[in-house]
Amino acid sequence: MGQHSEDEEKIIVGVTIGDINGVGPEIIIKMFSDNRMLQLCTPVIYGSSKAISFYRKTLGESDFNFTTIKSAEEIKLRKLNLINCWDEEVTIETGNPTPTGGKYAFTALQKACEDLSKGLINALVTAPIDKKTMQQEGFRFPGHTEFLAQQFANGGDHLMMLVNEGLRVATVTGHIALNEVSGALNADLIFSKIKTMHASLIRDFGIRKPRIAVLGLNPHSGEKGLLGKEEQDIIQPAIQRAFDSGILAFGPYSADGFFGSSQFKGFDGILAMYHDQGLIPFKALAFEAGVNFTAGLPIVRTSPDHGTAYDIAGKGIASESSIRSAVYLACDIVKARIEFDEISGNPLKFSKLSGDR
Amino acid sequence: MGQHSEDEEKIIVGVTIGDINGVGPEIIIKMFSDNRMLQLCTPVIYGSSKAISFYRKTLGESDFNFTTIKSAEEIKLRKLNLINCWDEEVTIETGNPTPTGGKYAFTALQKACEDLSKGLINALVTAPIDKKTMQQEGFRFPGHTEFLAQQFANGGDHLMMLVNEGLRVATVTGHIALNEVSGALNADLIFSKIKTMHASLIRDFGIRKPRIAVLGLNPHSGEKGLLGKEEQDIIQPAIQRAFDSGILAFGPYSADGFFGSSQFKGFDGILAMYHDQGLIPFKALAFEAGVNFTAGLPIVRTSPDHGTAYDIAGKGIASESSIRSAVYLACDIVKARIEFDEISGNPLKFSKLSGDR
Repeated sequence: MGQHSEDEEKIIVGVTIGDINGVGPEIIIKMFSDNRMLQLCTPVIYGSSKAISFYRKTLGESDFNFTTIKSAEEIKLRKLNLINCWDEEVTIETGNPTPTGGKYAFTALQKACEDLSKGLINALVTAPIDKKTMQQEGFRFPGHTEFLAQQFANGGDHLMMLVNEGLRVATVTGHIALNEVSGALNADLIFSKIKTMHASLIRDFGIRKPRIAVLGLNPHSGEKGLLGKEEQDIIQPAIQRAFDSGILAFGPYSADGFFGSSQFKGFDGILAMYHDQGLIPFKALAFEAGVNFTAGLPIVRTSPDHGTAYDIAGKGIASESSIRSAVYLACDIVKARIEFDEISGNPLKFSKLSGDR
Repeated sequence: MGQHSEDEEKIIVGVTIGDINGVGPEIIIKMFSDNRMLQLCTPVIYGSSKAISFYRKTLGESDFNFTTIKSAEEIKLRKLNLINCWDEEVTIETGNPTPTGGKYAFTALQKACEDLSKGLINALVTAPIDKKTMQQEGFRFPGHTEFLAQQFANGGDHLMMLVNEGLRVATVTGHIALNEVSGALNADLIFSKIKTMHASLIRDFGIRKPRIAVLGLNPHSGEKGLLGKEEQDIIQPAIQRAFDSGILAFGPYSADGFFGSSQFKGFDGILAMYHDQGLIPFKALAFEAGVNFTAGLPIVRTSPDHGTAYDIAGKGIASESSIRSAVYLACDIVKARIEFDEISGNPLKFSKLSGDR
């Protein structure tokens, strides 16, 4: 069931380097300087040995060693592997957004996605990119989530979910202006997101009968229509539909009181209506230990819940705790899916996933 | 300077009973069962001795005693005073919203406001009301804040501020639907709220050179216009205007990251654009110990940051911590104002405020 360490070592986690001018290389180095990570999984860094060596030197991380391989077919178990995604000399300008930073972040991401679609790696953890310098031929998206959804979604719905221990928050709408939120909501969309969250909580988190809380849109969840009608017209009907289809969905809850009491602890998943409504309380409560997970995709992808943090890049002060949690969560989800698929009669063997090495 | 206990006893704090069917009477009784509160101030409950006695019996609070007086002119220092605001028999229906609950909550509030405007009490702490049953001749407002602004504002701006130790959060817009927020914002309004917050931080909180953080409206504070223009068109100009007028105003900050790091701790006040943007993180961080303060008024008014909580009323489980903090804060603000006015040459004597008793 993927519980003992021999199996765990077989989980291959690809980690993209992200923007080489941001904190990505630094947090990757810090995370893997602790050898215990190799008992959990076999990591493969998608990036450049030169860039990693540059930051290793800057940070004085002498405990950090890696094995350069040519391709994912050569992955060595119990080792920290690195695939050079480019050979040319690349100028690193730590702390600055540059077109070069965006270009090579995409190169690494593309290579990792190739290996992910071939099943050569079991999960993808992405270090932060710069949304602006990242824009280029082939990448016209607000972020990793939307790019990966386009690559892997197969027409199904996807959901940005933030995870920290028992707290799992997803949002119905994403990177849109606040005054577009109300217009973007409808009962079908909310119902679809509840279903996606529900399926993910079962298969990815091993929760048999997940309880989902749905937040209202307006202050005090609309105060029975006095402060907005979306709760009555859209959100309540979506919850009812979910409930009628056997999903334990509840709400809509007033968002401020919900997170200001212990109420939120009674649910396995929380669905917010818009970006800040979900991310403000999540980040306030998780405090730098949160992980971003793209639910609803056939592949497993997680990331730290912070950005390139140019202002502190290369200074040795960036915390690796979020990306480390992202690797942990990716491994947990790979294992949960294997277990779920075994139980539900889809006998995808563990060894199959990691290529029987 | 109002620092030693003799002066402190002279601070007269009126406490309205709120909705008699909600948790108001219960949290007032629990708070004043601790005699140490009388070293801090002289409290006057505006309500009914019968209602208080009813709940004292229900709760079995034998340590709780009070002195009934006819009017504020009879206030006894070092005692818990109670003014009967009505004489008739009133039916209490614990846990239920009733027109009676709304009617007498308003009666108590009116009496306290009269004494407040006469200077017979120095501060007002309001227990929770039910916004719906409260609506009646004379009270057509979404809450206490708007009623008190109409009673006392004298045309000046007011601001709902949430306070918990060093965390002070105010919102530019209040109880309106989310899709009306963007339209309600303009640079003049934001500038006015920054000014009101600035003046309050100086006079009410004794901060000489307050630092104010202003949040953006959109996800990632608009991401330089990609996710909304209000930051560039409205918020940034208002901050600049405030800064040019000598106020240390900064921003706009991305609301999720701001509360998800230690960043918020570097500011004396935080101005959010809308209700949930301010109240979600405040309540998540303050966790039931927050106080609501109406800044910008000549009178001092605070309240707990929760509602009538009908579902737990009369069961003995409601926490008095928020209303106790509200009384503490009211006393602190009265003292800070006296100190500030003395320093700035407005020699309003302490004894004057409390009527030289």
